Amino acid sequence: MTSTLAPSGIDTATSPARALVCRACSARYPLAAQHACYECFGPLEVDYDLSALATVTREQIEAGPRNLWRYAALLPVGQDPATRVTLDPGFTPLVAADRLAAELGITAALWVKDDSANPSHSFKDRVVSVALTAARALGFSRFACASTGNLANSVAAHAARVGTPSVVFIPSDLEQGKIVTTAVYDGDLVAIDGSYDDVNRLCGELVETDEFEDTAFVNVNVRPYYAEGSKTLGYEVAEQLGWRIPAQVVIPMASGELLTKIDKAFSELVEIGLVEAPADGWKVFGAQSTGCNPIATALHTGTDAITPVKPTGIAKSLNIGDPAAGLYALEAVRRTGGWMDHADDDEIRAGVRLLARTTGVFAETAGGVTVAVLRKLVESGRLDPTAETVVFNTGDGLKTLDAVAGEVGPTHRIKPSLRAARDAGLLS
Amino acid sequence: MTSTLAPSGIDTATSPARALVCRACSARYPLAAQHACYECFGPLEVDYDLSALATVTREQIEAGPRNLWRYAALLPVGQDPATRVTLDPGFTPLVAADRLAAELGITAALWVKDDSANPSHSFKDRVVSVALTAARALGFSRFACASTGNLANSVAAHAARVGTPSVVFIPSDLEQGKIVTTAVYDGDLVAIDGSYDDVNRLCGELVETDEFEDTAFVNVNVRPYYAEGSKTLGYEVAEQLGWRIPAQVVIPMASGELLTKIDKAFSELVEIGLVEAPADGWKVFGAQSTGCNPIATALHTGTDAITPVKPTGIAKSLNIGDPAAGLYALEAVRRTGGWMDHADDDEIRAGVRLLARTTGVFAETAGGVTVAVLRKLVESGRLDPTAETVVFNTGDGLKTLDAVAGEVGPTHRIKPSLRAARDAGLLS
Repeated sequence: MTSTLAPSGIDTATSPARALVCRACSARYPLAAQHACYECFGPLEVDYDLSALATVTREQIEAGPRNLWRYAALLPVGQDPATRVTLDPGFTPLVAADRLAAELGITAALWVKDDSANPSHSFKDRVVSVALTAARALGFSRFACASTGNLANSVAAHAARVGTPSVVFIPSDLEQGKIVTTAVYDGDLVAIDGSYDDVNRLCGELVETDEFEDTAFVNVNVRPYYAEGSKTLGYEVAEQLGWRIPAQVVIPMASGELLTKIDKAFSELVEIGLVEAPADGWKVFGAQSTGCNPIATALHTGTDAITPVKPTGIAKSLNIGDPAAGLYALEAVRRTGGWMDHADDDEIRAGVRLLARTTGVFAETAGGVTVAVLRKLVESGRLDPTAETVVFNTGDGLKTLDAVAGEVGPTHRIKPSLRAARDAGLLS
Repeated sequence: MTSTLAPSGIDTATSPARALVCRACSARYPLAAQHACYECFGPLEVDYDLSALATVTREQIEAGPRNLWRYAALLPVGQDPATRVTLDPGFTPLVAADRLAAELGITAALWVKDDSANPSHSFKDRVVSVALTAARALGFSRFACASTGNLANSVAAHAARVGTPSVVFIPSDLEQGKIVTTAVYDGDLVAIDGSYDDVNRLCGELVETDEFEDTAFVNVNVRPYYAEGSKTLGYEVAEQLGWRIPAQVVIPMASGELLTKIDKAFSELVEIGLVEAPADGWKVFGAQSTGCNPIATALHTGTDAITPVKPTGIAKSLNIGDPAAGLYALEAVRRTGGWMDHADDDEIRAGVRLLARTTGVFAETAGGVTVAVLRKLVESGRLDPTAETVVFNTGDGLKTLDAVAGEVGPTHRIKPSLRAARDAGLLS
């Protein structure tokens, strides 16, 4: 492998990570660039030395930087700040949503974890910072991804920050905002005439070629590290609530990975003694778009067989028709007593507008999905309106302006005179 | 005045503010909703009890929240968190721009203060949080502004967060991103067929009507409080540099107010003993768009007479043809030995792209202006490339996508196959 970055591997003297382990058959592998089990093709995840994690204290974390690296001792890489490839995302606002709660008939505390506040304005900065820090440690000299848009923005921005070449693969029908916001960083940007699932398949082939041997695809060959970044959303919610796990969380689902990692974060915090296990546990709820709802459909029909779909609809960042972590999302929701539901495009737009009007948070369509599903879960009685709830907004409304541009606009248009203002009813 | 917010006035037991004082004739007024001197029509600013400010310590500030309210003891309002009308902006990243420096031939440290990281993605969240906190204290029950776009976004978002009605006035030709991002919050949004200066004049008339007696126009009747919010940008830069003032700062100019307030912040920090005065002082540089450069033109022609212009060009957030604080900006630049320059639309676009490519920061056009002017200042020898410099990015590229959308895009477009990737040269 050629590399312009010093290859060093992952230093287990500072990292609590010990191995990659298969989520299906528990086979173990070294901490390398590998994402599927050689035995059973199951997905791999990072396995930690629990005794190392158990030494971490609240005080250590609270004394850390105001970003996701405050949890470095719980992550596979990045313990040494000099090794990080990062825009320093994380520690995004947990916004009290009292008026949203009132409109939905929720009487307990309702919070919006607003990850649009990350540097490239989506939660993807978290997974990219961890994945690319691992990629650099593993000696890769080019960064890549298959993306529905937000990941593209984040990989291109991270690559620009550190001056490393990037090549990003997207479906050619993405929102213009996400295309421009990737292209402006001046890396290679490859538009594919196909769905995200086509893009992902192609990247799975490219990663095996000699020409891409120097390239880390954040969500392919370094995916186990990538996925760990999502856990920081769960850690932050618990810390921001005063080291407490909320009774209910509502999480958007694309691959389903984010949902499983937030659940895993809560479990880890309990296991290593940083929070007390809530007496009644916590319930995990998943939100999909009606145009791409294979995981929710599997739950509703009571099966473990997730049937891939061809995605449609405006929530493009969630349009993964063949969700890699779908089974694990089903497991987490069933185990915790949660539920899943889905929202159509009109409901998504209404969700975006409801969230904006009641909280001042302008979410992209994925956030509209989550708010619309929150409403359905309350109406169907699946979610307890008397229990504390956190909903996750994973991206920024500025990236999906077209979704609401046809519905909102100036309420008045006048000439610049007091008389025109009076005629328009502004002085009545 | 009718008010749904408890009128309380500004509490001088907790606030260090003592009066409003005329910047022209030094006449003094009570801390009320007033923006012009009754004696000479000069602009008013907040005057403080210096002995109160002098008790503030670095340790107090560092123990505060990770947002602009860490400086509450240096602001006119908001000492009690319960009184704040705020999205909690501030403490945005100070990004090391080593590769940008290298491209421009700057050999000293170069930093980008990236205020696109604020909640509504521009520095305006700072001024709005302070203005609306003052507005609530003064008993106003509706929030308003005249805006070139970013201020509109921020006022509408703040109003939605606290559930107060808003009415926002904008030129009808604004970027779509800024219109949608204001309208989505569901307040009144009045598009005016005219320039920003027309919008501003109309707001100056409306504020005098009975029907708007309950309305705080953040940049009209509560402008003195509003302007103080900008000082926090200067405080933060000094704190983030380890309580040190940089040798040179490059600041975009619309009204010119931001530049004067950053300079004022540095002076205050020295005056109250929080930082040492640099031996050689600091130099303040101003950046305008060539399509709207009345302040830079006055400097270049050596006059104090700022001739209003009819603005043109893509840097719409800077398009104030009759800049209210232009004279004070001239004074600050002359006093400190700085300079001003301006950049045309092509240079602005190149500035946006250069900043993105070298730092991972995607700025709106105003940031492109600043980077383009930085380049000119180095080339003309006005700015010392061997002295530490901070440039200010005041807004987010997602808000002005059209400016670069015609120039950047996918580098490749292919079908989803390895063969297509090979044919496109991606495997060579």
